[in-house]
Amino acid sequence: MILLFTDFGRGGPYTGQMKAVLHREAPGVPVVELMSDAPAFDPEAASYLLAALCEEAPPGVVLLGVVDPGVGTASREPVALRAGGRWYVGPGNGLFSVCASRAASASVWRITWRPSRLSRSFHGRDLFAPVAAMLARGEDVPGTRADASALGPLDPPAELARVVYVDDFGNAMTGIRASAAAPGARMHAGGRALPRADTFDDVAPGEAFWYENSCGLAEVAVSRGSAAQTLGLRLGDSVELR
Amino acid sequence: MILLFTDFGRGGPYTGQMKAVLHREAPGVPVVELMSDAPAFDPEAASYLLAALCEEAPPGVVLLGVVDPGVGTASREPVALRAGGRWYVGPGNGLFSVCASRAASASVWRITWRPSRLSRSFHGRDLFAPVAAMLARGEDVPGTRADASALGPLDPPAELARVVYVDDFGNAMTGIRASAAAPGARMHAGGRALPRADTFDDVAPGEAFWYENSCGLAEVAVSRGSAAQTLGLRLGDSVELR
Amino acid sequence: MILLFTDFGRGGPYTGQMKAVLHREAPGVPVVELMSDAPAFDPEAASYLLAALCEEAPPGVVLLGVVDPGVGTASREPVALRAGGRWYVGPGNGLFSVCASRAASASVWRITWRPSRLSRSFHGRDLFAPVAAMLARGEDVPGTRADASALGPLDPPAELARVVYVDDFGNAMTGIRASAAAPGARMHAGGRALPRADTFDDVAPGEAFWYENSCGLAEVAVSRGSAAQTLGLRLGDSVELR
Repeated sequence: MILLFTDFGRGGPYTGQMKAVLHREAPGVPVVELMSDAPAFDPEAASYLLAALCEEAPPGVVLLGVVDPGVGTASREPVALRAGGRWYVGPGNGLFSVCASRAASASVWRITWRPSRLSRSFHGRDLFAPVAAMLARGEDVPGTRADASALGPLDPPAELARVVYVDDFGNAMTGIRASAAAPGARMHAGGRALPRADTFDDVAPGEAFWYENSCGLAEVAVSRGSAAQTLGLRLGDSVELR
Repeated sequence: MILLFTDFGRGGPYTGQMKAVLHREAPGVPVVELMSDAPAFDPEAASYLLAALCEEAPPGVVLLGVVDPGVGTASREPVALRAGGRWYVGPGNGLFSVCASRAASASVWRITWRPSRLSRSFHGRDLFAPVAAMLARGEDVPGTRADASALGPLDPPAELARVVYVDDFGNAMTGIRASAAAPGARMHAGGRALPRADTFDDVAPGEAFWYENSCGLAEVAVSRGSAAQTLGLRLGDSVELR
Repeated sequence: MILLFTDFGRGGPYTGQMKAVLHREAPGVPVVELMSDAPAFDPEAASYLLAALCEEAPPGVVLLGVVDPGVGTASREPVALRAGGRWYVGPGNGLFSVCASRAASASVWRITWRPSRLSRSFHGRDLFAPVAAMLARGEDVPGTRADASALGPLDPPAELARVVYVDDFGNAMTGIRASAAAPGARMHAGGRALPRADTFDDVAPGEAFWYENSCGLAEVAVSRGSAAQTLGLRLGDSVELR
């Protein structure tokens, strides 16, 4: 299975173009759009979200990740990572740093293969998708082993005290794993100190709280309401869990 | 084939996470996102929309439906329904009541199987998707036969005189089947009494009307315009067809 | 592989309903949503975007295109086109004119097959999808050979000097191929004359420019910003490249 994790947005032809390449190059392999509205131009926030989502992904999947503000420049290299039994293919801009740092072991490659035609602005379609297809077919990484620094900034903090995603209901995921919270810890967000709850129904309608969401992250929510609106929370905002 | 009908919204990782589970648990079975912007938190409106859409679905499909404001509470049970040759898997909160009531025969199960890890907030991924995969693989429902009340409120009205969906063009679907309309019936919506038309081109640009849409529902529309804007119609608004 | 190119919008059940038909009628054939937010009600703009996107599509694909304001009327006929080794199925309203005019050879059919049940407003699901499935299965076009005029307006201009798509980042694609630009040509858009750049990083943040995008079209962009906002550009706006 190939999972797509990008900031391409919910519309446009970009995801479809990548899928067309993947189906052509890796026939019979299921391709799943895991997320197309990852934090745009923000590989750091995206890396914490990706790591949380991948915790659940079955071993053997190929994760094709594209949050790549430096596409077409020398500021980052195309990389492949093998960690936790999964493959990751994408830009070496920190997007995979958290996945690598949390894995028991991680192997890194610099991708040296180049297609005959490489758009300056769409390496997802022209470079990363064909390489993801090669790995899904069981082939070797078309590149050379590299040390972890090829992935981008090293030693990311264990948790990221920022909002990394706001969903359609206005729930705000943070980059902090709920398992890292001390007992009784409150989430300081939007000028408030919010208590923890187990589910939306443990608090009164309209009440703000934080809880462990379905991928293990501490998430700010409002029962039957929008945390984003109620607390004025936006992607990237700083929070504190203490 | 497995069809997904949810209110997860157009973005976010939720639909992708469910698809990843389905492809892993039911390899080779096509998974189609029928709709991800079903009426949010509104199982009643969703049930009429779902019933209209499923009229066309081929026998043998598994419909995985998640409009589930009570997720993680005791207010509803996980259920499976066999009706019209199709399977339905999801919460017993009324979401499948209309499908059941319109079928010649309906069999209902309470799902008793539980996964080793069950998120309080995402039964779609952890419980309903694995069960949908079992049914798609031809296995028995992992549960016990139940009476129809497990599906939620019994005996739903035959038609629902509310707006159940507003599409991107501003067309407003109601929960009333066009076949239920008396000859010459007008749609009372947004303070107006609208005539029926066969197609958008039967009326002048800018004119509001109602017609039988492609899934058999009475839909309010404006030729070359937006009914939602012109008439101030929103999801859930009451209408009358008489 | 079947590629979908429609203006159905990012939500709603329409794309899912078409996919369900395609999976049922052409089992085992991958179905890819190339784009669901093509220029709405604007077959002319859509035809230039489609032609650019299809340049990359592998031979053998079936492109199912639905931008069809005249659905259900006699203003256009259902057509099939064979061009560049690819199939195109959809309305004969000009949507495929640019693809046909750029191909070395083009064969055109009027589709005469009709389904037993044909919604007045959703030929995509009831007529075009089943025919696309037939072609994907290797069957003949269920229709009669026709001359190119069945595709709609003949002899489209080589390039279209309008905005044909605005993506989620605010980049504005035009219907002009970058290869048609004279050296040093500037893009006149939003009251400005913009220089060409190779990539987003060749200009200072906030600067507007144009470049050859990943499908070969001249695209107006702002480095780390939104061209749509900065220049007030919208779908359909006229531009000039000289």
